[in-house]
Amino acid sequence: MTFEHSPLHLRYLGIDTYKESVVYMRKDCHICLAEGFEVHARVRVTLGERSIIATLNIIDSSILPPGKASLSEHAWCLLAAHEGDEIQVTHARPIHSLSFVRSKIYGNTLSEKEFSSIIKDITKGRYSDIHISSFLTACAGGRLDTQEIVSLTRTMVEAGDRLEWPSDIVVDKHCVGGLPGNRTTPILVSIVAAFGLTMPKTSSRAITSPAGTADTMEVLAPVKLDIATMQHIVQQEKGCIAWGGSVALSPADDILIRVEKALDLDSEGQLVASVLSKKIAAGSTHVLIDIPIGPTAKVRSTEMGNLLKEYLESVGNNLDIVVKVIFSDGTQPVGRGIGPALEARDIVSVLKNEAQAPQDLRERALLLAGQIIEFSPDIQKGKGLKIATEILDKGQAWDKFQRICKAQGGMRDIPKAPFTHICKAEKKGCVTHIDNREIARLAKLAGAPFAKVAGLDLHITLGSKVAQDTPLFTIHANSPGELDYALDYLNHNDEIITIQE
Amino acid sequence: MTFEHSPLHLRYLGIDTYKESVVYMRKDCHICLAEGFEVHARVRVTLGERSIIATLNIIDSSILPPGKASLSEHAWCLLAAHEGDEIQVTHARPIHSLSFVRSKIYGNTLSEKEFSSIIKDITKGRYSDIHISSFLTACAGGRLDTQEIVSLTRTMVEAGDRLEWPSDIVVDKHCVGGLPGNRTTPILVSIVAAFGLTMPKTSSRAITSPAGTADTMEVLAPVKLDIATMQHIVQQEKGCIAWGGSVALSPADDILIRVEKALDLDSEGQLVASVLSKKIAAGSTHVLIDIPIGPTAKVRSTEMGNLLKEYLESVGNNLDIVVKVIFSDGTQPVGRGIGPALEARDIVSVLKNEAQAPQDLRERALLLAGQIIEFSPDIQKGKGLKIATEILDKGQAWDKFQRICKAQGGMRDIPKAPFTHICKAEKKGCVTHIDNREIARLAKLAGAPFAKVAGLDLHITLGSKVAQDTPLFTIHANSPGELDYALDYLNHNDEIITIQE
Repeated sequence: MTFEHSPLHLRYLGIDTYKESVVYMRKDCHICLAEGFEVHARVRVTLGERSIIATLNIIDSSILPPGKASLSEHAWCLLAAHEGDEIQVTHARPIHSLSFVRSKIYGNTLSEKEFSSIIKDITKGRYSDIHISSFLTACAGGRLDTQEIVSLTRTMVEAGDRLEWPSDIVVDKHCVGGLPGNRTTPILVSIVAAFGLTMPKTSSRAITSPAGTADTMEVLAPVKLDIATMQHIVQQEKGCIAWGGSVALSPADDILIRVEKALDLDSEGQLVASVLSKKIAAGSTHVLIDIPIGPTAKVRSTEMGNLLKEYLESVGNNLDIVVKVIFSDGTQPVGRGIGPALEARDIVSVLKNEAQAPQDLRERALLLAGQIIEFSPDIQKGKGLKIATEILDKGQAWDKFQRICKAQGGMRDIPKAPFTHICKAEKKGCVTHIDNREIARLAKLAGAPFAKVAGLDLHITLGSKVAQDTPLFTIHANSPGELDYALDYLNHNDEIITIQE
Repeated sequence: MTFEHSPLHLRYLGIDTYKESVVYMRKDCHICLAEGFEVHARVRVTLGERSIIATLNIIDSSILPPGKASLSEHAWCLLAAHEGDEIQVTHARPIHSLSFVRSKIYGNTLSEKEFSSIIKDITKGRYSDIHISSFLTACAGGRLDTQEIVSLTRTMVEAGDRLEWPSDIVVDKHCVGGLPGNRTTPILVSIVAAFGLTMPKTSSRAITSPAGTADTMEVLAPVKLDIATMQHIVQQEKGCIAWGGSVALSPADDILIRVEKALDLDSEGQLVASVLSKKIAAGSTHVLIDIPIGPTAKVRSTEMGNLLKEYLESVGNNLDIVVKVIFSDGTQPVGRGIGPALEARDIVSVLKNEAQAPQDLRERALLLAGQIIEFSPDIQKGKGLKIATEILDKGQAWDKFQRICKAQGGMRDIPKAPFTHICKAEKKGCVTHIDNREIARLAKLAGAPFAKVAGLDLHITLGSKVAQDTPLFTIHANSPGELDYALDYLNHNDEIITIQE
């Protein structure tokens, strides 16, 4: 159905609503009045050949002149809009797959076809946050059986791109829930690739943490690689460390994760589908999953860890991907640096076998690399760690890492922060607690991850004995303002590192 | 925790996001950078003594100058903001009651204290739409037992104002899900008040329909009455027909209903809590609930009707309110006029006992009034209809209605639309189907309810025999543009009224 009316043209207002599509129209807009649109209605916005569903916000001020409408940044990108473009706005047709969400709410088991229909609509931006929240809630609380998680995972893979590699074994690794500074990936990829297994690693940027693997790796080499470049590098070096954002692997996952975060809801089914869909789409055949367990880590109990392990292994089995789960210590940060450049320094230090390299980071990377090496059919169980250690100790990993950086566009020098401040112990004693979440927050206040040089450098670990005025950590910042801001926060929060006499 | 930084001042942008609080800040805002706020974060906005939780949208254009921030209309009202006011924006503390929502997701039964904590946070605007959607979904699909619905209803009552009346019996009536034109309220209030029962009726304006009872009543008399005025009128006349928006009865309900509509989720538990919390807050002791059943009505089957009846009666019983449920025909519109002024004309015609008054509207109003009169302990079951009919036929209801209008501020003349168009049958035959939803849409396109005179006047009912060119309905509009718009829609949609030869 179309109506004839004077056209509506776009005016750029630059309003970022994150991943929600919003269309802004004037209160007295003839189309609003005529179509009987209500504020907050879901409407169809068409620009040329493209069409999206958006939430309507009404503007009653001069920022939008008569005859003009605007779009949120996300909608502007989806429609590839330009200033002055003509748009059509009409009522959105009902979303058929919402009836499957309602069916799930009423406790029914969904078929793969039904999940597929839901995931397709989510990927195309047809669900508002309200709809996505309802879908996630209906699937949480153990309401998905193994077969449903398998279906959900497969449909999430199919909704995006899928990488292919010319090896029989393609290995990957994932860490569930972050510990600050836990940047083992560049080290273990270098070890595993030097060993000879194919490991085309795609990593994410930070969403809520002070650094993602992609942010840290970018300090050392370019990470925005297209698929052809990745394939070329992997053919040559067996491994790479690229930013996953340039390939659309399991795009529904990115949309779901955002709403899950807002709900603070860790549903086992969604977590399993999220992790495995990314790995399968990346073309992996063997995946090692590291679950750090600790009171301020994402997974807080062995019980929850075991439940996840069971789901991950059985869903992996159903989808023809080998999944191995290990638990690790999640009680404190890993390494010394927290923030892209400081973590990059630790990585290089471990790869170069420097005497002052953080041993916890080295040991973690070796443990994981050893487990991955054991995916190789030629390697006996229990022999992986020794092989990994030899590769690192002989400098083969450092050599491989340099070659990977060169292939990705050239290795870079690590920049240093112009402003630093050493924070010292106020009393003597023993370090009994380090709050992972507060440590991460302080690093972010200092400017990480946007300022690559910003973050924290820890000088102690759990159990360290300190005297009064022993340095605990150094704050690194790119500007005096950011440094002051972190210090100001510190002055108001003294529970970050606990020292007992 | 507070930081020292240069203050942020408000600039009015007039962006209406409906009931969601949004704060708009510049991309380069020092507070955004320093606090590490991400787009879409939930933040605390403080203005003087008032404080709200809002969703952050980032603006990257000149509509917001440096040092300025803005608020959505809803947030602007909640904070009673003025241009140039200084605000503080800080991280929002975690919302404790969300742990109860998660508990419900995991299938636990919630206590009244837990519901109270959730409803309090919702009423204070601390939940985003994502959180509300999750709460509604977790409670849907039959996951609330009777005791939980009782708890939810009671906490919803307690979250708002509560009216009190000096009578032992205070009657009320509610219709679940609308039929266009079903405007029995002003008629039955007049009959019941003339009989002598206390009926202080508060009604809503249209949300998605072409007219709410408050919109229609406003054609005939003022409806914005404060509580003191309502009490005075009810003392004098026993009844009134006021707009419920001027009293804050069960405010959580208004917030929940908006998200329910977006989800298109009719959860029995929420529906029962919604209806009964409003009635209990209004001080009612006896409530008649009319459930129209039909294929294009809200309740589509007797089975669903019976389930609702059972819940409504048993929850009412637990909360010391007498609830009587009746089912009625929901297959077609009621009366002739659809839209405020046309419905007002039908109401007056029935009250005046005019020969051409729509008999279906008269009969429905009498049936409901009779049932309400039987709430009186002096009246035998089955005698109510006869009493109601006598009161109407003798002109006592019309007299009472005029007195109520006078008490509410003076009776008004019904305005007429300057532009009308008669739509005629294209062929002879019998009317076999009238689509309630399409009828409502056409009336809205013609301008209802904002233009009081706009809407449709139906000339046929189900079963009417028509010749070619027999008038089916007349479209009424306040402007030629709106009339054209309705006609244009009509030309593209010929399934509104079905005629079979």
